Amino acid sequence: MSNSIEVYNKLTFKQDIPKYIQIATFIKRLIEKRKIKDGDKLPTIRELSSFLSVNSVTIVNAYKKLKSEGYAYQKVGSGSYAKIREISSVFRKEYSNSLKVLSIDELPSIVDFTGETNTEVLFPIDDLKTTIDKVLDRDGANALISNSTYGYKNLISTINKVFWDNKLNEEDMIIVSGAQQGIDIVSKGILNINDNVIVEKPTYGGALSVFKWRKANIFEVPIENGGVDLDKFEKILRKNKIRCFYTMSYFQNPTGISYSLKKKKRILELAEIYDFYIIEDDYLSELIYENSIEYIPFKWLDRKKRVIYIKSFSKIFLPGIRLGYLVAPEVFRESLQNSKFNTDITTSSLMQRALELYISENKWKQNIKYLNVEYNKRYKAMQEILDKDFKELVSYIDPKGGLSFYLTLKDISISSKELFFKLKERGVYITPGIMFFTSENDGKNTFRIGFYQTNEDKIKIGLNILREELLKCHI
Amino acid sequence: MSNSIEVYNKLTFKQDIPKYIQIATFIKRLIEKRKIKDGDKLPTIRELSSFLSVNSVTIVNAYKKLKSEGYAYQKVGSGSYAKIREISSVFRKEYSNSLKVLSIDELPSIVDFTGETNTEVLFPIDDLKTTIDKVLDRDGANALISNSTYGYKNLISTINKVFWDNKLNEEDMIIVSGAQQGIDIVSKGILNINDNVIVEKPTYGGALSVFKWRKANIFEVPIENGGVDLDKFEKILRKNKIRCFYTMSYFQNPTGISYSLKKKKRILELAEIYDFYIIEDDYLSELIYENSIEYIPFKWLDRKKRVIYIKSFSKIFLPGIRLGYLVAPEVFRESLQNSKFNTDITTSSLMQRALELYISENKWKQNIKYLNVEYNKRYKAMQEILDKDFKELVSYIDPKGGLSFYLTLKDISISSKELFFKLKERGVYITPGIMFFTSENDGKNTFRIGFYQTNEDKIKIGLNILREELLKCHI
Repeated sequence: MSNSIEVYNKLTFKQDIPKYIQIATFIKRLIEKRKIKDGDKLPTIRELSSFLSVNSVTIVNAYKKLKSEGYAYQKVGSGSYAKIREISSVFRKEYSNSLKVLSIDELPSIVDFTGETNTEVLFPIDDLKTTIDKVLDRDGANALISNSTYGYKNLISTINKVFWDNKLNEEDMIIVSGAQQGIDIVSKGILNINDNVIVEKPTYGGALSVFKWRKANIFEVPIENGGVDLDKFEKILRKNKIRCFYTMSYFQNPTGISYSLKKKKRILELAEIYDFYIIEDDYLSELIYENSIEYIPFKWLDRKKRVIYIKSFSKIFLPGIRLGYLVAPEVFRESLQNSKFNTDITTSSLMQRALELYISENKWKQNIKYLNVEYNKRYKAMQEILDKDFKELVSYIDPKGGLSFYLTLKDISISSKELFFKLKERGVYITPGIMFFTSENDGKNTFRIGFYQTNEDKIKIGLNILREELLKCHI
Repeated sequence: MSNSIEVYNKLTFKQDIPKYIQIATFIKRLIEKRKIKDGDKLPTIRELSSFLSVNSVTIVNAYKKLKSEGYAYQKVGSGSYAKIREISSVFRKEYSNSLKVLSIDELPSIVDFTGETNTEVLFPIDDLKTTIDKVLDRDGANALISNSTYGYKNLISTINKVFWDNKLNEEDMIIVSGAQQGIDIVSKGILNINDNVIVEKPTYGGALSVFKWRKANIFEVPIENGGVDLDKFEKILRKNKIRCFYTMSYFQNPTGISYSLKKKKRILELAEIYDFYIIEDDYLSELIYENSIEYIPFKWLDRKKRVIYIKSFSKIFLPGIRLGYLVAPEVFRESLQNSKFNTDITTSSLMQRALELYISENKWKQNIKYLNVEYNKRYKAMQEILDKDFKELVSYIDPKGGLSFYLTLKDISISSKELFFKLKERGVYITPGIMFFTSENDGKNTFRIGFYQTNEDKIKIGLNILREELLKCHI
């Protein structure tokens, strides 16, 4: 459908900005406000240039800019068409910029419940410095040379020994530059265009982006206590040839839910029956605060070689050190090794060696113990306030571990996105639900608050402000 | 077309290997030998299981294995079909494994003209160690924390100051984990499926893989002295909407050719006329041995914002430190930043800081000077022998810089791939031309010999063996 050209009447040019940018911005706004709809034909170049009394090159450039920003596309011989960019991706940018624009001086005065500022780091920096020094002394130039695309051999062996009781085949392992890269490599290595992928609903936005980039078809299955809804899961399996299921088995992001043993076993059976693979993203399983949660990842139960396991060290080791590994069934060995090579050749050598020494000298386990104590304090502090002061405002499933709570609004008249903006004004940052869904209509009444970048005082201050804002909108 | 089932008569089962693997291997061989052709229908499960007297599950598993390895595909409701894997990819694996299987003890006795072993490193390791220590002392925990997806701000500023005379817009820059990642990020950020890409012929295999992975259509244009053949280049531009042109402007890999100023200017004009972008991979321009080569990358000449510039530090800094940066026109800012985030969130922080200090303390330039002297010696040593002893055996274009020579066989009765295997037997490793083309029919009479991982003695030994082998096959 084409719009009337009259709508462009409202465009008045300012002096100091190139006209083509002003035209592009004007059209963008119309698209975002849905005055121009997805697939609407834009005026022809001649039409618009004569209507606005500008040179036709100006319109060409404006359309070019819209195209490059994803607001328009061209059909050969037929002109330009509008394209709706998902609001979620627009908001995503706003969200991620909101913290980035803060200066270092401002950071101490805000409460970061998103966990994205990296202002608070629980890490014995001197220990790591000593470790790096030792590696440089011990290995000399070799410390800085990479010998293998798949990772530093001793690190692979140490991981196998310390975390897997030597039960892994080390040839199935690849060191990666963090879990995000792990997901990207797996996606490129095992997915073809239009392959079907099941994800949890809600799920981690960084994984969604990777699958979308790979042009996969995404099916979302709601997650509930104990794991995804198996009825809905099987229904999809029966109707579609699924290539893989992406899951976070412990403290799922954002819900904090961990899978029950029963569900894990059933999903593994289904993987065999329906011939799909499980991508298990294990990013936080070290932080278990209650005995009722036992660590048995899909990978441990994987008798039929159905699990591609991705482990991140970044969150728990150090956010600036991008390190992790993946373990995959042998059938994928070649394609994943190629995928790693074509992604970044190999992961930097020095940090692999430092991590290896850090783990084999047992400092890793000591640090995890320390982190468990510290984060558990914050977890309890947050939970105590939530249970005491938020009863009529929010509900949540107790994660019993991890670094955050996922809250559902009760009888609140605003969306969590609106809440985000209100709280931001007051220096408190939350992650609204919209960040974790493929559709912009989901996640309106949920949000995540994490304690990773806080302390007990900040938790009190932040939750107090959150409570005040929620009370204002309580129905 | 379907094959007669009789061909499976030749399959005799061995005792100790699962039957499905033996069947899959047998079929793979038939495909590789072209006894089964691309797109041929494989026997049905029932047919083959009864012919071979095995359980049908065995055939199912064999076909599954073939599928997962890319030798077969399934059409729903119609059965399984053979797929020809490019021989070049089979050889690629053989090639890259040939050096990997060598133990550290074996390395000193071989001559690595491929440059892939990293046995010889011209790097003042103590300098870097001091730099890393300084960074850790200066920045403490911050040294290990990443503050931005796009890279450590001071590194970006220092690069702009030292290498670009502050002429870049720093918001257009992204720090990447090496040039390979740069290519991958650009590919994901600006290419859509079926977009058309022009590459030089021959070109770097790692870039070809990335573009193929992105399902781009690849056009190859022969490179000759001074750059690509512009007639052929324009012919493609006239007939096809090209999205980008991937080029290595200095010491092109593998040919060693550098672009003339005239060709660079013309290609920039064409980019504007035909609306495509130039991906400039600048991986080795620091190593210029002759004054006749002047450093003027496409990026310097880029008035119309047509160039995406990718700079690797890995080759010249340290191969185990995956670091580089890219500079792109503003229209791509958002898509490339997203692409970087979804690829690995960010590049490790510590090494960015170490590199920043290393550059700003002027150690970078000192080291480059030193590298120039050292590599120039090897370059001259290699050239001297080539000119003296290989006149009737090979021809080459003098690169006048970089790290290798690209040789064309003269009147030799074997292909460079066969030569590779012969030389390998004698402990000398070359890179045959086939590695740099999309078609397995190209590159048969060319190969690359690099001096990156050699010294003057090894050059003598290796070239002597090369000469002996060539003389054996001289017509």
